[in-house]
Amino acid sequence: MQELLHVGERIDDLQCKGYQIIQNKEKFCYGIDAVLLAGFAKVKAGENVLDLGTGTGVIPILLEAKTKGRHFTALEIQEESADMARRSVMLNKITDKMDVVTGDIKEASKIFGKGVFDVVTTNPPYMNNHHGLVNPHMPKAIARHELLCSLEDVIREGSAVLKENGRFYMVHRPFRLAEIITVMVRHRLEPKRIRFVHSYVEKEPTMVLIEGLKGGNSMVTIEPPLIVYQDKNCYTEEIRKIYGIEDEEIK
Amino acid sequence: MQELLHVGERIDDLQCKGYQIIQNKEKFCYGIDAVLLAGFAKVKAGENVLDLGTGTGVIPILLEAKTKGRHFTALEIQEESADMARRSVMLNKITDKMDVVTGDIKEASKIFGKGVFDVVTTNPPYMNNHHGLVNPHMPKAIARHELLCSLEDVIREGSAVLKENGRFYMVHRPFRLAEIITVMVRHRLEPKRIRFVHSYVEKEPTMVLIEGLKGGNSMVTIEPPLIVYQDKNCYTEEIRKIYGIEDEEIK
Repeated sequence: MQELLHVGERIDDLQCKGYQIIQNKEKFCYGIDAVLLAGFAKVKAGENVLDLGTGTGVIPILLEAKTKGRHFTALEIQEESADMARRSVMLNKITDKMDVVTGDIKEASKIFGKGVFDVVTTNPPYMNNHHGLVNPHMPKAIARHELLCSLEDVIREGSAVLKENGRFYMVHRPFRLAEIITVMVRHRLEPKRIRFVHSYVEKEPTMVLIEGLKGGNSMVTIEPPLIVYQDKNCYTEEIRKIYGIEDEEIK
Repeated sequence: MQELLHVGERIDDLQCKGYQIIQNKEKFCYGIDAVLLAGFAKVKAGENVLDLGTGTGVIPILLEAKTKGRHFTALEIQEESADMARRSVMLNKITDKMDVVTGDIKEASKIFGKGVFDVVTTNPPYMNNHHGLVNPHMPKAIARHELLCSLEDVIREGSAVLKENGRFYMVHRPFRLAEIITVMVRHRLEPKRIRFVHSYVEKEPTMVLIEGLKGGNSMVTIEPPLIVYQDKNCYTEEIRKIYGIEDEEIK
């Protein structure tokens, strides 16, 4: 499989069905955010899924491994990341289940059409404050800061490509919760499940996982807090389960 | 003090500065919601506070005890509750610090004028589903269900009576969070602090405490979860502190 790997890249184990992912540490590697979103999102048998701003494709690759979804489409604006994602799809032999499209989130409903997906997932750039950015053209900056698309772009396009009653799953930063909810509601994505992720139970959350239902009514479930560490350097049982660490030990 | 007490009523200790409150078990007694809101709300020295839908007045009485606020006004539509609140004010000898007004939340900005308070607190009716209500004229039903005012009424009037940069504190049910946030933003009360209250850490929250800033920018802090019980029948240290149980033991 070495022909799939370019200079500077490495292959990491996803600890799920033996799947692997190609990453480049100098560019952008997936974080716990993506893994937790893949654990939070629900994909039912036969559903078609679109991941907006897929990076190296970690979310749809994990969802393909974990669910019975029919097909996964991954949209990524940075050709270098999209190319890595395509090679990971080949590496995992899921070319019949997953496509990677190079393109702009802002154009998603033009590229794919309106009302076509059952599920949309997204781990978009979190930061709307670009102060101190040394190089706004760096892959990491584009993945982390709203340089090429805004929160509203992601939500508007996510809603547009979803079928009525389709589901939208996003991971984001809690400090933007009020904006996330108002923009989702404006675009008819009614929040239905929200879960906050805390490093420790006595700390403020560092991430929020949110499920929206296109055309849903106004009633949301706040789930129990998802705690990452029980002690220093020791993951909680739930995080070990999401990461597949338990399975590893059982083998 | 027996002349202050009517048939069916009782005097309960608030475990704070020796303050007491008159309640009638058959009508409506304050719950943990009110105590937690009084613990969550911040009132600075010299500020004027309005409590919307005060019931027996527990929130402003606790805030008068705990803070250096200048004056507390309590608005209540049910004359019987307002009368109990007035007698509790006399009982605690704070008639110079607190007024109880009988009136409708929907009319608050007509009664008091616009832009006059520094802080608004409210523990409004939670339920917007009136199915199965045996008697919608009962005091408990009026306190718990949106029979006489809606969530939007409370938020609209709360915003109207606040000065610019005034603070709005509400306790409510988490299932209405999306609606709470969208309506607050619509009325220029930007959510700044949100705290969820969980009976146990592994359970969904049963209450949400929220602070809004009139005219604020869109950036919110989700605080660490407030956990009520550490074990069955055993409050957490933080809840004991809010309830003043520690002080009791130290005496």
